[in-house]
Amino acid sequence: MTLRARLVVDWGTSNFRCYRFAADGTVAQTHQAAAGILGVADRDFAAVLQREIGAWITPDMDIFLSGMITSRNGWIETPYVEAPARLADLAKAAVVVEAENGVNMHFLPGVAMHSPTPDVMRGEEIQVFGVVGEHETATVILPGTHSKWVAVRDGALQRFSSFMTGEVFGVLKTHSILGRLMVDAPSDNDGQAFLDGVRQVSRNETVGLLHDIFTTRSGVLLGQLDAQDSAGRLSGLLIGHEIRDGLAAYPVTGRLLIVGDAFLAQRYRLALAEFGIEAELGSPLASVDGFSRLSALNR
Amino acid sequence: MTLRARLVVDWGTSNFRCYRFAADGTVAQTHQAAAGILGVADRDFAAVLQREIGAWITPDMDIFLSGMITSRNGWIETPYVEAPARLADLAKAAVVVEAENGVNMHFLPGVAMHSPTPDVMRGEEIQVFGVVGEHETATVILPGTHSKWVAVRDGALQRFSSFMTGEVFGVLKTHSILGRLMVDAPSDNDGQAFLDGVRQVSRNETVGLLHDIFTTRSGVLLGQLDAQDSAGRLSGLLIGHEIRDGLAAYPVTGRLLIVGDAFLAQRYRLALAEFGIEAELGSPLASVDGFSRLSALNR
Repeated sequence: MTLRARLVVDWGTSNFRCYRFAADGTVAQTHQAAAGILGVADRDFAAVLQREIGAWITPDMDIFLSGMITSRNGWIETPYVEAPARLADLAKAAVVVEAENGVNMHFLPGVAMHSPTPDVMRGEEIQVFGVVGEHETATVILPGTHSKWVAVRDGALQRFSSFMTGEVFGVLKTHSILGRLMVDAPSDNDGQAFLDGVRQVSRNETVGLLHDIFTTRSGVLLGQLDAQDSAGRLSGLLIGHEIRDGLAAYPVTGRLLIVGDAFLAQRYRLALAEFGIEAELGSPLASVDGFSRLSALNR
Repeated sequence: MTLRARLVVDWGTSNFRCYRFAADGTVAQTHQAAAGILGVADRDFAAVLQREIGAWITPDMDIFLSGMITSRNGWIETPYVEAPARLADLAKAAVVVEAENGVNMHFLPGVAMHSPTPDVMRGEEIQVFGVVGEHETATVILPGTHSKWVAVRDGALQRFSSFMTGEVFGVLKTHSILGRLMVDAPSDNDGQAFLDGVRQVSRNETVGLLHDIFTTRSGVLLGQLDAQDSAGRLSGLLIGHEIRDGLAAYPVTGRLLIVGDAFLAQRYRLALAEFGIEAELGSPLASVDGFSRLSALNR
């Protein structure tokens, strides 16, 4: 049996990323463009795929697509697989479209939980499967706009929760009264201000999130906080609350891995240390590793 | 000694309200206008006062002013009185300006707390002193954009905490991804959706606020929540979290009073009942009663 050539496409709201795998399973070539699904004219996704990586498409190839390209606003809407889910469940639930010249396009599913509370992810699951071992039990944190906390048991994605931490920070800074005292230029003291915010939570000097965030304004009005530190403090308070609630719902068993943007991952690692928890940074190539494992299942 | 005539002006960001007291201490006349400090041209507050209630100003009168008119962006910036504070402390700390014809203008102070966390209020304290007895021990909740929980002990405003509940609801609805699924027309089921959100917290079906709010979107995506109920659910979740955290920081001793807008006050009363707590609605004239007590101190 001839091995089929493989491309994987991580196609999100704002970005398009493609990885071409060599026959030995390593990444041979990568391509990245600001060609997210929101910017695709007339929903002509085929044209954008051709423009960005047409030269890499060869006959009898598999193309795996994941991220918001598989959502309602994407190319093909795929269903959600219910957690607990293994990598093989994702592969099985993919919607396969046969294109010209024997090219198969695999649109991957998202993952959903219906109880105890509803939750969804689309794309992060590939990163999770990229950083955990085939039978590993671990907790994975993916910080960001909608941070995810994921419990993995014996290699299966057992359950997860989203936290709107990044988006809440953004809307409060841009649209609430808290932003009026914030300074655009980043403070030299920003890292310390961030940790002070985390500690306000880890040391339980908190009356609850909806109160604590207000102290980034009242503290400035009363001369207890520099205006230039209030954005960092707010970030620390929000991430501190995410971590406090995340640790309560996801008691750490096995490794605790942080996967994502390097700056943010490092901030989470320092914040977790304030709660007495040691975490490792996962590979920045988590999604590539996940795609590699996934596409290998189909051989 | 002749009793001096009295006016009180509650002058906030968006609204101007004035009450003229009769000699017997009752309210003889009221005037309200959308003439908040944000809309005053060239900071000419004297002109607006003259336009709105000039006909009521008589020689040898006292005018008491409270609210954002005493803030940095107002007419005269007054200092904060530190909690614990009695009504007499507010009267003493007022900045008195002598105007023409023996008219004295009393610009009232705000109230501040420096520890355990910084907090400020400007205007709500008058409402608190309007609803509690001279030596009463009670808890007062003032729901709103920045809700306040206030502990009163033996008639003194002992300590308080602000919660950004109303503003967070507004920015999430208008500016976050949660608002995209929300329907403008109020749902017939809005009251039930609100209580469902409160119960998600009171029954402890919560992974923390930053997660819970995301379920108003993921619930719709997974068919567990009607889009038209998601705004009500979000409001219930946020107020549920405020109440859970408020009750932890302000254990109820004596009466629990809710003071504010009738619709919102009733919602808080129903929400508190979900936590097994009975509350009374304070007088809608709380601020008038507070001003009345305060101005009587100066006689």
